[in-house]
Amino acid sequence: MARTELSELGEFGLIEVLTKDAKIKNKSTLRGVGDDAAVIDHGDKKTVISTDLLIENVHFDLIYTPLKHLGYKSVIVNLSDIYAMNAKPTQITVSVALSNRFSVEAIAEFYKGVHLACEQYGVDLIGGDTTSSVKGLAISVTAIGEANEEDLVYRDTAQVGDLVCVSGFLGGAYVGLQLLEREKQVYLEQPEMQPDLEDKSYIVGKLLKPEARQDVYDFLAKQGIKPTSMIDISDGLSSEILHICRQSDVGVLIEENQLPIAQETQLKAFDFKLDTTVCAMHGGEDYELLFTIKPEDAEKLLFMIDLKIIGEIIPPEDGIMLHTIGGNMKELIAQGWRHH
Amino acid sequence: MARTELSELGEFGLIEVLTKDAKIKNKSTLRGVGDDAAVIDHGDKKTVISTDLLIENVHFDLIYTPLKHLGYKSVIVNLSDIYAMNAKPTQITVSVALSNRFSVEAIAEFYKGVHLACEQYGVDLIGGDTTSSVKGLAISVTAIGEANEEDLVYRDTAQVGDLVCVSGFLGGAYVGLQLLEREKQVYLEQPEMQPDLEDKSYIVGKLLKPEARQDVYDFLAKQGIKPTSMIDISDGLSSEILHICRQSDVGVLIEENQLPIAQETQLKAFDFKLDTTVCAMHGGEDYELLFTIKPEDAEKLLFMIDLKIIGEIIPPEDGIMLHTIGGNMKELIAQGWRHH
Repeated sequence: MARTELSELGEFGLIEVLTKDAKIKNKSTLRGVGDDAAVIDHGDKKTVISTDLLIENVHFDLIYTPLKHLGYKSVIVNLSDIYAMNAKPTQITVSVALSNRFSVEAIAEFYKGVHLACEQYGVDLIGGDTTSSVKGLAISVTAIGEANEEDLVYRDTAQVGDLVCVSGFLGGAYVGLQLLEREKQVYLEQPEMQPDLEDKSYIVGKLLKPEARQDVYDFLAKQGIKPTSMIDISDGLSSEILHICRQSDVGVLIEENQLPIAQETQLKAFDFKLDTTVCAMHGGEDYELLFTIKPEDAEKLLFMIDLKIIGEIIPPEDGIMLHTIGGNMKELIAQGWRHH
Repeated sequence: MARTELSELGEFGLIEVLTKDAKIKNKSTLRGVGDDAAVIDHGDKKTVISTDLLIENVHFDLIYTPLKHLGYKSVIVNLSDIYAMNAKPTQITVSVALSNRFSVEAIAEFYKGVHLACEQYGVDLIGGDTTSSVKGLAISVTAIGEANEEDLVYRDTAQVGDLVCVSGFLGGAYVGLQLLEREKQVYLEQPEMQPDLEDKSYIVGKLLKPEARQDVYDFLAKQGIKPTSMIDISDGLSSEILHICRQSDVGVLIEENQLPIAQETQLKAFDFKLDTTVCAMHGGEDYELLFTIKPEDAEKLLFMIDLKIIGEIIPPEDGIMLHTIGGNMKELIAQGWRHH
């Protein structure tokens, strides 16, 4: 692959290379890249905004993360936050700080992933900042979305008696991370070894190329279900349900035997001698949606195979509990600081 | 000063400490910190959004930058972009990535500056992300503003015959940076030496605690002047006027003898054997506003002592020129990559 030094292009040349593929898809985007600020027209809708900062060797490891996947994921994690408000993402800004270790081609790969995610989710890239770093790659993404005021779903509105639902499967990204970390160690010790990722595409994909649950957002709208509270699972189910409970001043009872865990996750966790429930509860980075609904909406959920009821909201004095497969009650705790 | 390790608080504890001083000032702020995304209601106004990523030892040096000033400046540079659209900033998000070299007290100092800027400019802190870094401090700020569509001012709408105006003084931040870099070298060689910054408060302040030109935005509105194009000066006058000329497809003639340079900047530049015109043209980080107006609006500018007409928009084929004090014509060029 060709290598063009960043210094050959200069900042504005680089911005031009990186944003020439940005196509405007939303009529609410009045101005994109190229002025002091982008301009968005949200008319009578409410504007929703979320931002994330991703740091090399904290949030991602370039030894096993292709740059294109990283670009894609950087967008996805922010879109996931917008869907978690029951809103539709419409625009993103992407800023990168990079050292001269990166070539223009490398960072163009990253932006290929950014553009792919924009394409896939109908979102416009409208701005950002490109700058140098002393060492490593830092990525900041801000996502903007829109919703009618009455459709917005917060974290502090769960009520006793509501059912707790989750989309997709849990723990996959965490087990995928364990697998890649293990392969990395093998690689560092024996660089001639090829990584053994055969048949691991699901868990590796869950980590490296997650999707945001646009389909769940669409399904809820189509079925006329407005969740009573919602959050996306970036730090693990346990941490997220604690947010909902604390902010809504309620308790919860989660059924361990209802936790959705994919078969590949189970098999690999078994290989690694990991407890699958721990992976599902504390794993993080699954970017599934966790939400509560009124019991009368439960039957409508049956139309989407990918949604599961895993528990119930209970009075705050009854605590934040896991009902184990063995029939015991265990109190749930968060895992504290997000990245290790 | 007390030192609390970041790990003692955890991410959410830290967010609580950092955002407890955030007061909501705009009625358009429906939800701030504490959900997946913030919610903004801009009704019939247009939403303007700008973002910046600041990296330690690229954009700032903590040897001579107090953290509170850094927090203040991180906000200001983004507000400046919003004013440069002729819009009013209303909300910001602030994300920081920091290594365990920083204590909670240190980062709380940073946020004191953030809150001060919010207070000063009537802007609401509505969200962000706090994460760890392997090394160094990275800061990402996104500013959101609002404007009536007909008031927005872009970069690509300057016309032949328009007058080129600039607010405040130029080159101060650049000379301030030279001064601090010099003091840093002295300090590194002789740590017992105290920095000699007496009587240098203007240029040092220009660099460490710049202001965004809210007063110019207010003045233009009050006088009923709508600039024909506008940009803020972050990379130097030369680079910014080139943006306006390229995007508007026009040329420009700048009068060297009209460049506004403060006396302290002149004296210090003389000390350092720097050409003051070069400092003013290429210095950067002044965060003044550069704009063009119709000639008939020129007399209204007289009511604000801080605004100066420095040139004229000319046909594109006449080039991008500096009319020197000596009477020569020199072609203007940008300085390329923003940070060195």
